Amino acid sequence: MSNPTAAILVIGNEILSGRTQDANVQFLAQRLGALGIAVREVRVIPDVAETIVGTVNELRARFDHLFTTGGIGPTHDDITSACVADAFGVPWEPHADSMQALARLFPDGQFNAARQRMATLPRGAIPIPNSVSVAPGFTIGNVHVMAGVPRIMRAMFDALEPELGRFEPVRMVAVHADRLGEGSLAAGLEAIQHAHPTLDLGSYPYERPDGRRGVALVAKGTDATALASAHDSIRTLIEDLGHVPVEGEPAP
Amino acid sequence: MSNPTAAILVIGNEILSGRTQDANVQFLAQRLGALGIAVREVRVIPDVAETIVGTVNELRARFDHLFTTGGIGPTHDDITSACVADAFGVPWEPHADSMQALARLFPDGQFNAARQRMATLPRGAIPIPNSVSVAPGFTIGNVHVMAGVPRIMRAMFDALEPELGRFEPVRMVAVHADRLGEGSLAAGLEAIQHAHPTLDLGSYPYERPDGRRGVALVAKGTDATALASAHDSIRTLIEDLGHVPVEGEPAP
Repeated sequence: MSNPTAAILVIGNEILSGRTQDANVQFLAQRLGALGIAVREVRVIPDVAETIVGTVNELRARFDHLFTTGGIGPTHDDITSACVADAFGVPWEPHADSMQALARLFPDGQFNAARQRMATLPRGAIPIPNSVSVAPGFTIGNVHVMAGVPRIMRAMFDALEPELGRFEPVRMVAVHADRLGEGSLAAGLEAIQHAHPTLDLGSYPYERPDGRRGVALVAKGTDATALASAHDSIRTLIEDLGHVPVEGEPAP
Repeated sequence: MSNPTAAILVIGNEILSGRTQDANVQFLAQRLGALGIAVREVRVIPDVAETIVGTVNELRARFDHLFTTGGIGPTHDDITSACVADAFGVPWEPHADSMQALARLFPDGQFNAARQRMATLPRGAIPIPNSVSVAPGFTIGNVHVMAGVPRIMRAMFDALEPELGRFEPVRMVAVHADRLGEGSLAAGLEAIQHAHPTLDLGSYPYERPDGRRGVALVAKGTDATALASAHDSIRTLIEDLGHVPVEGEPAP
């Protein structure tokens, strides 16, 4: 059985304008990879209802899981939850338990209409607990709707993780070819790729803060035996070019 | 006339696996915004030919510009350039000037087949100079193909920028409502949005490293008069709630 696939949908004008650097994709990609769920696509889209509805429907059909971040707060531009209800063709309605939990946070009269929107969910949605600020995310079908604020998103993912299952993790080895260029490594690397068709081999040039350059050679896959063999071959490739292979950071 | 639109397409397994944090989207979004070109979508996709060809064709049809990063090096997983040729239905062939420029970099016999791929471009492509490592990016139609290594991508964008034109820049004001929550601001912010329909108003909760929380209220648009009016209204909203508005970082 092949591993489940996932897409990440980042909803928010602030990433598209460059005002904010996304801080959620890498976290989710690493955590999902460790569960054996492979992220196959990321999209960033604006807070535009038609775009959100269309993109949610496209991605939930194409991947086993869709994780969204952003747009579930109390303000007028927080339209993700209502759009996901539209995408599933279900009403967007007060969720009794979430409404009670949120109401308890605020003094009389301050649990206003804006705040009540955060406890309004698509019918049939299962809340994802939020240990930071109570207002929940939710799962409906294969779509997991989470906050955009990184600390809250992470708390939601921690709560959601046990529901996602565990599969053969995607393992990774990275070997750094310091002071070598991709052009010297390309033919050898391609031969290693051909010898290990179940793996994905990639090469990523880097430049250290001190100006030192090199290439990270990365092999990824679920087959530990093939991975060990590719690892050896990559080390030999670098040694044969007269350089010393440097083991990369541990796989996420 | 409305401003041109753009999409950014990040091509690379290393972002999807979480091994690498993207460092190009924010740079491009800010620089394009300053030219008056609005980024409307970002996608991250793997090094899979069918996916690259299909996505390039979809996005170049939907937006005025498409900027791609990644996958133009010399190794077997660098397939962006050949895929863009496929997407345009043109041959992928040696580009004489680029071939000569690259050949000069290498000693006899070291300008190998892998390195020659970096001077192989879609027919009709116009090279984008690379002041860092010579191997060019290129423009074909409304598609601008750039390196994934941030320093090289930035050098390519510097070279490309004068070709993109200048439009009414998207201006932005940001005011921080320190120690206020979105739920207290939502109704007032929505009223300001309704009073300024040509602007986009957004609210973004933040948490400082010292634990202090608040909300950044952001207004964006090309109409300087409307922007100044919304700016005043946002300050008044915060003051009416008994807090002191704090001007945000200068707009990118």
